[in-house]
Amino acid sequence: MIKISFPDGAVREYESGVSALDIAKSISEGLMRKVLAAEIDGKVVDAFGPISKDAHIKFLTWDDKGGKSTFWHSSAHLMAEALQEIFPETKFAIGPPIENGFYYDIDLGDRKITDEDLALIEKKMKELAGKKERFSRKEVAKADAITYFKEKEDPYKLELIDGLEDGAITFYTQGNFTDLCRGPHIPNTGFIKAIKLMNIAGAYWRGDEKNKMLTRIYGITFPANKDLEAYLEFLEEAKKRDHRKLGKELELFAFSEKVGAGLPLWLPKGAMLRQRLQDFLQKAQLESGYLPVITPHIGNINLYKTSGHYEKYGKDSFQSIKTPHEGEEFLLKPMNCPHHCEIYKTSPKSYKDLPVRFAEFGTVYRYEQAGELHGLTRVRGFTQDDAHLFCRPDQVKEEFKKVIDLVLYVFNSLGFADFTAQVSLRDKDDRSKYIGSEANWDIAEDAIREAAAEKGLKTVEEFGEAAFYGPKLDFMVKDALGRSWQLGTIQVDYNLPERFELEYIDSDNSRKRPVMIHRAPFGSMERFVAVLLEHCAGKLPMWLVPTQVKILPISDKYSDYAHEVLALLKKKDIRSEVDDRSEKIGKKIRDTELAKIPYMLIVGEKEMESKTLGVRKQAVGDLGAKSIDEFISIIQEEATI
Amino acid sequence: MIKISFPDGAVREYESGVSALDIAKSISEGLMRKVLAAEIDGKVVDAFGPISKDAHIKFLTWDDKGGKSTFWHSSAHLMAEALQEIFPETKFAIGPPIENGFYYDIDLGDRKITDEDLALIEKKMKELAGKKERFSRKEVAKADAITYFKEKEDPYKLELIDGLEDGAITFYTQGNFTDLCRGPHIPNTGFIKAIKLMNIAGAYWRGDEKNKMLTRIYGITFPANKDLEAYLEFLEEAKKRDHRKLGKELELFAFSEKVGAGLPLWLPKGAMLRQRLQDFLQKAQLESGYLPVITPHIGNINLYKTSGHYEKYGKDSFQSIKTPHEGEEFLLKPMNCPHHCEIYKTSPKSYKDLPVRFAEFGTVYRYEQAGELHGLTRVRGFTQDDAHLFCRPDQVKEEFKKVIDLVLYVFNSLGFADFTAQVSLRDKDDRSKYIGSEANWDIAEDAIREAAAEKGLKTVEEFGEAAFYGPKLDFMVKDALGRSWQLGTIQVDYNLPERFELEYIDSDNSRKRPVMIHRAPFGSMERFVAVLLEHCAGKLPMWLVPTQVKILPISDKYSDYAHEVLALLKKKDIRSEVDDRSEKIGKKIRDTELAKIPYMLIVGEKEMESKTLGVRKQAVGDLGAKSIDEFISIIQEEATI
Repeated sequence: MIKISFPDGAVREYESGVSALDIAKSISEGLMRKVLAAEIDGKVVDAFGPISKDAHIKFLTWDDKGGKSTFWHSSAHLMAEALQEIFPETKFAIGPPIENGFYYDIDLGDRKITDEDLALIEKKMKELAGKKERFSRKEVAKADAITYFKEKEDPYKLELIDGLEDGAITFYTQGNFTDLCRGPHIPNTGFIKAIKLMNIAGAYWRGDEKNKMLTRIYGITFPANKDLEAYLEFLEEAKKRDHRKLGKELELFAFSEKVGAGLPLWLPKGAMLRQRLQDFLQKAQLESGYLPVITPHIGNINLYKTSGHYEKYGKDSFQSIKTPHEGEEFLLKPMNCPHHCEIYKTSPKSYKDLPVRFAEFGTVYRYEQAGELHGLTRVRGFTQDDAHLFCRPDQVKEEFKKVIDLVLYVFNSLGFADFTAQVSLRDKDDRSKYIGSEANWDIAEDAIREAAAEKGLKTVEEFGEAAFYGPKLDFMVKDALGRSWQLGTIQVDYNLPERFELEYIDSDNSRKRPVMIHRAPFGSMERFVAVLLEHCAGKLPMWLVPTQVKILPISDKYSDYAHEVLALLKKKDIRSEVDDRSEKIGKKIRDTELAKIPYMLIVGEKEMESKTLGVRKQAVGDLGAKSIDEFISIIQEEATI
Repeated sequence: MIKISFPDGAVREYESGVSALDIAKSISEGLMRKVLAAEIDGKVVDAFGPISKDAHIKFLTWDDKGGKSTFWHSSAHLMAEALQEIFPETKFAIGPPIENGFYYDIDLGDRKITDEDLALIEKKMKELAGKKERFSRKEVAKADAITYFKEKEDPYKLELIDGLEDGAITFYTQGNFTDLCRGPHIPNTGFIKAIKLMNIAGAYWRGDEKNKMLTRIYGITFPANKDLEAYLEFLEEAKKRDHRKLGKELELFAFSEKVGAGLPLWLPKGAMLRQRLQDFLQKAQLESGYLPVITPHIGNINLYKTSGHYEKYGKDSFQSIKTPHEGEEFLLKPMNCPHHCEIYKTSPKSYKDLPVRFAEFGTVYRYEQAGELHGLTRVRGFTQDDAHLFCRPDQVKEEFKKVIDLVLYVFNSLGFADFTAQVSLRDKDDRSKYIGSEANWDIAEDAIREAAAEKGLKTVEEFGEAAFYGPKLDFMVKDALGRSWQLGTIQVDYNLPERFELEYIDSDNSRKRPVMIHRAPFGSMERFVAVLLEHCAGKLPMWLVPTQVKILPISDKYSDYAHEVLALLKKKDIRSEVDDRSEKIGKKIRDTELAKIPYMLIVGEKEMESKTLGVRKQAVGDLGAKSIDEFISIIQEEATI
């Protein structure tokens, strides 16, 4: 008999060799039907494998990350089985689960997989799933494994086996398909109820462009059809909200191959949108006692040797900039902090001068692999809404509270209502890896916790997640599609003040190190604009939207009146345009709606004579006739942050 | 007999061998006494040399650049003569005239020149000048020249002679001093009435740090004592107005060795000042139909190969930025134009879309030798108030007129009343070196001339001064000390539209190249702020000054009232501070004056009781008691641009 401990603390005895499925069944049939895999003493394993010693158990279902990935891993095997049935000549490379679904890289010789093929494979997968084929695991000697795949003439599996140690090789089989695999897998293929093969791509064997290009088939599966439907709907919606698509449609930003991948060009409407966001934060910051500074985008290489950034970014990032003068070398700045430390040092500071808060919308440059780049969320140059607060240890809590206020003000003003904050603390067991005194860390960790609590934040605490240089508070925001984004961060730093030998004279005339706090409510202007666009599906809040009002004359006859209205609106700083094209009014209305402009003003005979406007609001419809003054009040109120 | 033509067109006959001095004397004794050198057929020569063929003559006096430089060159010889008398062991290297005065590089062995020595040399120079020693010129065979300086044991002159061709060597002698020299010189040392040796510096022989370090003595001389006095006064005033000194005192900007020479750090007050300047221009630009854009500070190296900037800046500037991905290489942008061309190309343009005006406060980086750097006027990174106008050829004149309006608005708003504009046109004789069609150049040159005339600009036209890519209009501004600064430029460009293959569809559906206009009213933010600071001696106009008002409580008792006033002023966006220090009111007033703050408000018992303010204005004095509202109106009016 062995002792099995459950997450709730209960302990029960079972016969040695019992499987997780047996244990689940002993609790309820319903539970058993949901178990996809199990976590035994922290390790994810087959739910159908034998347990032969005392253990902690956790059942993994569709609701667990480990359950989902096992489900998708098994689905990759199911797809491979279907491929083997339809195209027996297929050679298989690797087939892992991914964040959403799975893929398998295969070699089909000269054959190209078509969309019709995908439908065929999907159909075959469903048929095989219907058979509820059980997955079974077998340990195989290296020689036997080689023999098996030699017979199959699969060079990829043979190369993989070549890299494995004898004694650590396992095969998994379901139906007629056997794969070299570490597992784990779900009990049987019957769990897989809904299947969608998404797309085909090319992928080099082992990711190396010197190797053969294989065919990668992406798919996703679900335990129920309704889950697949919801997922496809989500995809459809995410596609509509893709900031790259919206950025193009709304003429906010563009990329140019000649300028370089990952280096956004902000078009006029985007540049003005970004400027409004910056002005909004700048105003709030000035009111909170921040001091704007401006620093160059490069620095002498010694600056980054002092700060440690050269060591951190040096090799994998943009290389140093040499000059005609030998030995004088610069680096594109990957962070603004070293520059702000140098500004701190331009004049002596006393304890009464602190806190000092330097703020800069500072553009930094970090190299990313071309394949990693994605619209505005993953770029090679981005502008941080950066600030560095230099304070005394006893001021950390108060400063954190003020920064939290600022972050909440930003989130509220931009319609991000759903967020949590993660407090990242030291490792409980190993404190050797952190710089700074125990006493200061204790002060800072308590300060962050208390500040978050006093501001009523929903927080989770993560031990061991602090940076080596200090604890931090990160804000995770949920967007309208339920996706999580990390926006906003507040970090304590004991490292840079040490490296730059920053000082202030304390009340007792002794020299002390200030504490440094890094913070960025937006994170970066690029990423924030991307998230905002996807969150609001391109329907930007009134105070931010590039064009607030479009005036649509019913025909050329009313063009003068339209321009008269335009002049009045512009005088009130209302961002307006006239649609002067000789198009039917219906087309003008449709185009304005597509352009996601909040208000359209339709002007014809009646409006011109009565000096009114036919007001239509995006997503709401006709608001009827309003006087110009009435309309100005409406829009001014809506545009107030 | 030979024919001598004068600048006014007159022609007179003289005997062959006549000197310019003789000719001047034939006109008037007074003229002769002023002649320092002569321009014969465009070449500056000794006024005392013989003229032996028909020639055009121009007399050069102290009022001519060529007169001044001859005067200072002769002064260098005079200083050398004095040095030889006092320190006979002196070896002489080179002694040219410079923009303000002259220097001589000498080798004195181990001897260090002291301030007392300078006084001694000055005295000796005056003594020698008093002798009115005549300068004489002699052609010398190379062998004889070598013999002469071998005897003198002067290695520097020998090295110089080594590089000269036989037949092209001349000596000049005055008194006991003979120098290897190309000339020309003034008639005699008696012209030199006022002498000031300025300072001593080290200089490598031939500017090469591998060579010996010589002693360089700088001096300046004048034809009258009053000129020297005025010059020294000017220097004193320029020193007070030096923007590097003011920048430190007013806490506007700083440099850090760690960040790198020539890379300014804008401190809070400077950053806000710069922001106000940018906001001011941005507002005017938005009203004039400019579209703001934002582009990265780097670009793929191919972008600059296309634009031609790689070829232009490549070798002598910041070197390219390599990346971990071989072959992917970037460059710090030396100019914003290539990026704006790429933005132009993000969407097709029709003749109706033009002009398009992209504006960016774009920071660019260009390497300068460390020795060339100077405060904010010569830096390695600077922010251009850049814009690029893309227009049809028929729109060039209208666009120029609008840009002139903008430039004049900027100059007027900042107190630069005295300026001229230089129209830079093609070379009259050689038109082969210009890109773009004859017809377009004609249009553009006429457009600039007409635009400047219609706007009533004081212009000078310079043929051959156009860039190879187009004609331009440069604004030369005189500051309060009478110094000229080039600020503001408008340039036509036919080159980049060609290189980037920019197009628009014309009304006849044909593809045409737009004309590009570069323009920058400030030039660069760094340089402009420097010139502005020197122009106004740090007393910035009310709308720009970082702190407009300082409130000075007479003692701690009135601190609360001072802060009450502060809150009221801040509500009206009046940039104010309270001087809370426990200092005597006299000291507070002095410090506020030194800080060049326009207004101070003195508050004590009387003011607190009557809710008034004791208003003192910088450079004006006591304005008496004012109510808070009264004061707010005064300052708001003064702060209106």
